[in-house]
Amino acid sequence: MTKPLSDKVINIKPSGIRKFFDIVSEMKDAISLGVGEPDFDTPWHIRDEGIYALEKGRTFYTSNAGLKDLREEISKNIKRKRNIEYDPNKEILVTVGGSEAIDIGLRALINEGEEVIIPQPSYVSYEPCALLAGAKPVIINLKGENDFRLKPEELQNAITENTKVLILPYPNNPTGAIMEKEDLEKIAKIIIENDIYVMSDEIYSELTYKEKHISIASLDNMRERTILIDGFSKAYAMTGWRLGYACAPKEIIQQMTKIHQFAIMCAPTTSQYAAISALKKGDKDIEIMRSAYNQRRRFLLNAFKEMNLECFEPHGAFYVFPCIKEFNMTSEEFATRFLEEERVAAVPGTAFGESGEGYLRISYAYSIENLKEAISRLKRFVEKLRKEQK
Amino acid sequence: MTKPLSDKVINIKPSGIRKFFDIVSEMKDAISLGVGEPDFDTPWHIRDEGIYALEKGRTFYTSNAGLKDLREEISKNIKRKRNIEYDPNKEILVTVGGSEAIDIGLRALINEGEEVIIPQPSYVSYEPCALLAGAKPVIINLKGENDFRLKPEELQNAITENTKVLILPYPNNPTGAIMEKEDLEKIAKIIIENDIYVMSDEIYSELTYKEKHISIASLDNMRERTILIDGFSKAYAMTGWRLGYACAPKEIIQQMTKIHQFAIMCAPTTSQYAAISALKKGDKDIEIMRSAYNQRRRFLLNAFKEMNLECFEPHGAFYVFPCIKEFNMTSEEFATRFLEEERVAAVPGTAFGESGEGYLRISYAYSIENLKEAISRLKRFVEKLRKEQK
Repeated sequence: MTKPLSDKVINIKPSGIRKFFDIVSEMKDAISLGVGEPDFDTPWHIRDEGIYALEKGRTFYTSNAGLKDLREEISKNIKRKRNIEYDPNKEILVTVGGSEAIDIGLRALINEGEEVIIPQPSYVSYEPCALLAGAKPVIINLKGENDFRLKPEELQNAITENTKVLILPYPNNPTGAIMEKEDLEKIAKIIIENDIYVMSDEIYSELTYKEKHISIASLDNMRERTILIDGFSKAYAMTGWRLGYACAPKEIIQQMTKIHQFAIMCAPTTSQYAAISALKKGDKDIEIMRSAYNQRRRFLLNAFKEMNLECFEPHGAFYVFPCIKEFNMTSEEFATRFLEEERVAAVPGTAFGESGEGYLRISYAYSIENLKEAISRLKRFVEKLRKEQK
Repeated sequence: MTKPLSDKVINIKPSGIRKFFDIVSEMKDAISLGVGEPDFDTPWHIRDEGIYALEKGRTFYTSNAGLKDLREEISKNIKRKRNIEYDPNKEILVTVGGSEAIDIGLRALINEGEEVIIPQPSYVSYEPCALLAGAKPVIINLKGENDFRLKPEELQNAITENTKVLILPYPNNPTGAIMEKEDLEKIAKIIIENDIYVMSDEIYSELTYKEKHISIASLDNMRERTILIDGFSKAYAMTGWRLGYACAPKEIIQQMTKIHQFAIMCAPTTSQYAAISALKKGDKDIEIMRSAYNQRRRFLLNAFKEMNLECFEPHGAFYVFPCIKEFNMTSEEFATRFLEEERVAAVPGTAFGESGEGYLRISYAYSIENLKEAISRLKRFVEKLRKEQK
């Protein structure tokens, strides 16, 4: 036996997010602004449906692709909210969160050495999942001056003859950036001209604070080359339920389902029953949570303005991404000192890619009281740093 | 763009099991003996714990590796029942069923082209997961005359310089075969001499009808080269909860956790809370289900004897694997005619590998009433076939 473990796996770095939270959990009085998870409990009617399923003994496998009723509700929801039609029998696969959909979507697409374009800063799973699938990740370093949107020329420059798929991560974690219709149209044109695919991770689709989210799959001739990924974690505060889905042309869903069948079997049954209720009756819950997030977002942006901390206005997800370049230290140094000296945990922008250098991800999936306390500590910290620099 | 999808994935055949059940579900009066899933509802105290977790709003992510309390209970359980010690903090990973553990275990181990030895007939996921991980599957065709146990000489002949890991699938699906201590000792010797790993899939460990299950990891010097996989689906009738685990040396669990973190995040939270109750208070439930299975097993074996149908005595899982070679037709032909002419669905042995040819998998995870009706149909069918042959 030559090597005990897979080189490919060993060479992948673990996520840089968790590290900070292991420290926080052992620190008294520490405030975390770090986790990418709604602070709301799952709405009661959804939990109640899960409870009902358990009481009724619905504890068996579902079909590999997921409950038919759930796939039908997903289809209706996507038609209603994004104006795209997917056949619930052949074009929708229910997965273990959006995470599994990203992983098996890439596994279904990639032949060894093909290139996956990943705009960064973005969610920590894309690059490892691409590497695990045998792809060569090609990173686009998004720019603060563009509000972290993907620009057509950036995409064009990243495309080679080996490009297979672009991961399009909007609304974005960690920047909160969105892409609007005119942005997407320019991207779509390049995608079509170069005959490549898009994996559109729309897990934050319900959390936008400007106009309604638009999916690139809804643009002309894009449905056939898009894997649309969404789920229940963020919109319905259902992270622990581990439920998401992928929508794509049937040839792709068929291959993804094959991997899913062998590697996972089916998504958790209780979660599937509960999710039907989420889709049927959850619009109101989304609205309530979205307006709470929006209030916090405005509070933070206003506070940054008052303390003269540079931050573009993020219109999506539940993150703000202030710039800390004025302090002449790395994001990691800033975050470490902020944690040690003020006991507030935020994630260094570099946890999401090198282009996150000089930025900090602050999640506002926390109560306004928590945010107020954190902001007063941030203000004190910023003032201290500014004094040090003089 | 050269190829729209991954060749590797396209070339994997979908499972041969489901096909029959799509037919059954549309056939009136049909009896299925096909699904590999307990017919019992999850015991109430386990469901009750899940309900309690939902009522309390425990709907958030757990740590990547799973709830600490759950890992501690798993550790205690394995110590108590298999006499192996695993550190709950570093050597146990909670997964989405045993399925995910198989998939990510292979992904963590395999470098492109290394060989995975798979004894067949066995569970349908091993070969696809090995292929997806970039391995070359090396099949051992187990023999009916050995009661489908893996013989040391069979293993020795399959080993090459590229061998990385043996998948050891006992108690076995589909044959019901087990491996006893003396069988395992001979296998362990070869494993150690050749410096390879074992992935021991012990998902049916609680369902044995002779002596208690023995894990190869409990033998001298084997713990360090074994990934032990088990879960809650079969022992506690918890299939839909999608919860399993892997135990292995920390270097391996560390790499598996990395893949799990990016591709799955964590196992479903409600299921994790419920599983703690399963481990703490579920021994009685297992005992009740095991004796129901055992009663059915004896009933079937006796019925086969009465109709003169050859079948070795299976001591594990909830399957019998009768031999149908006397009828001079393929397993597929037999199963198809049995379904069409008698409306009973059983799975052709070939769904689990070529060496399943001439056999039929009959699951006894069905009520004794169902089994009685199915057996009377089988008897009629067998008599008819014997007449045809004259």
